[in-house]
Amino acid sequence: MSRRKILITNDDGVKSRGIGALTEMMRQYGEIVVVAPFEAQSGMSAALTIGKPLRLTELKTEKGLKVYACSGTPADCVKMAMNQIFHEQAPDLLVSGINHGSNASIASLYSGTLGAAAEGTVYGIPSIGFSLTSHDPDADFSAAIHYGKIIVDKFLENPVLPDIFLNVNFPAVKIEDISGIKFSHQGKGQWIKEFEQRKDPYGFNYYWMTGEFYNQEPEDTFADHNLLSKNYISIVPHKIDTTDYNEIERLERLWKL
Amino acid sequence: MSRRKILITNDDGVKSRGIGALTEMMRQYGEIVVVAPFEAQSGMSAALTIGKPLRLTELKTEKGLKVYACSGTPADCVKMAMNQIFHEQAPDLLVSGINHGSNASIASLYSGTLGAAAEGTVYGIPSIGFSLTSHDPDADFSAAIHYGKIIVDKFLENPVLPDIFLNVNFPAVKIEDISGIKFSHQGKGQWIKEFEQRKDPYGFNYYWMTGEFYNQEPEDTFADHNLLSKNYISIVPHKIDTTDYNEIERLERLWKL
Repeated sequence: MSRRKILITNDDGVKSRGIGALTEMMRQYGEIVVVAPFEAQSGMSAALTIGKPLRLTELKTEKGLKVYACSGTPADCVKMAMNQIFHEQAPDLLVSGINHGSNASIASLYSGTLGAAAEGTVYGIPSIGFSLTSHDPDADFSAAIHYGKIIVDKFLENPVLPDIFLNVNFPAVKIEDISGIKFSHQGKGQWIKEFEQRKDPYGFNYYWMTGEFYNQEPEDTFADHNLLSKNYISIVPHKIDTTDYNEIERLERLWKL
Repeated sequence: MSRRKILITNDDGVKSRGIGALTEMMRQYGEIVVVAPFEAQSGMSAALTIGKPLRLTELKTEKGLKVYACSGTPADCVKMAMNQIFHEQAPDLLVSGINHGSNASIASLYSGTLGAAAEGTVYGIPSIGFSLTSHDPDADFSAAIHYGKIIVDKFLENPVLPDIFLNVNFPAVKIEDISGIKFSHQGKGQWIKEFEQRKDPYGFNYYWMTGEFYNQEPEDTFADHNLLSKNYISIVPHKIDTTDYNEIERLERLWKL
């Protein structure tokens, strides 16, 4: 029996600790191919590189592990892996992350980690995005690795349906402080007060994106960011088809086209 | 009564013909503020610019129309407009486009035009993305403008529910060849054979994204790209919350966490 084929990517770049932790976590499950961005690509959503060419560089080959860096976005990395390495034969699993920072609530819209998981899903690969709620480049991934394996075991036994991927967020706490694992939904929230305005040495304005999170979710729901604040690991199944079918019917009735 | 406030953006850049056509189409509806990228930002999805600062430049002010260029992505443009121009008071309407090229089927995942509409929706602005199925920079937008006004009239009378935006695609045909307007769903499809490999003058490989569209939708459905191929204008309501609630229940039953 041939070993399972696993594609790993992320949005923090091929040298981040998070993808190192994920690679370590996944080695027991099969043959690993890592294709990740040369540099950090946070907040890139499912963006693609159009209008300039991409590079793909092999960084490492050892038994059961190949590592490549790609000059593009996380979604580009998946496309490049599928076209140039897997020749459009879907691997058995795609895992993306472990992201340095939460991808709960509205962060799922902007997340490059999840943009890669979405792209894997489009290619028919069962896909999971993993994130830890800490931006510390030296964050402790031990609880994420421990519980991540439990989640991967469950996923391999009972994967998601087609056109769905999982968004797993770990609270940044010690193993013994994890409250449990729960399925959850994308919580309602947004960023506000998003820019810090500065003046350059020539007197012109420029703007740094900063912002604060505005929680629009009632406290008692099982929304992902609510669960995380209670030290639960949250798992949200996200769809590729984002059509609102109920809204079609409602608008058809009202608009009478 | 104060006039309606309208935010216009796109992903082809502030100088594209499509945003010119959209601005012309919208002037009768209220006071226009255009905040669009300096340069083309196609395929940018809902990507944000993190890690480098942004610029915002006023290009034009006349009665009922202000035009700004922003150095970021389409979603950045909406955030910049909301923070620096509207001071977080949502305008009455956001329209994005008119995109040069279809945003039907899986293109909706990668579209910067729709990334901006999604960002507007997060800010509580009723939002529509408009696209024409032609990449020609000199495409004829007259049918789009004619039918676009009909759609905007309907939308103002009966807008979408919160957390939903509309994805409107026009077939690139003459007014008299339009079959009608229909609500629709995101069609199933993906790109395949995505890269053209070349060698640079130094003998190293590089890759241009090209690809061909692989239609995975049965021909008889009312999917957006099926309708467009029959010269219908397609309108898809997309959700910001992409959670699959049925899959939560199914996985909870199977995984027994």
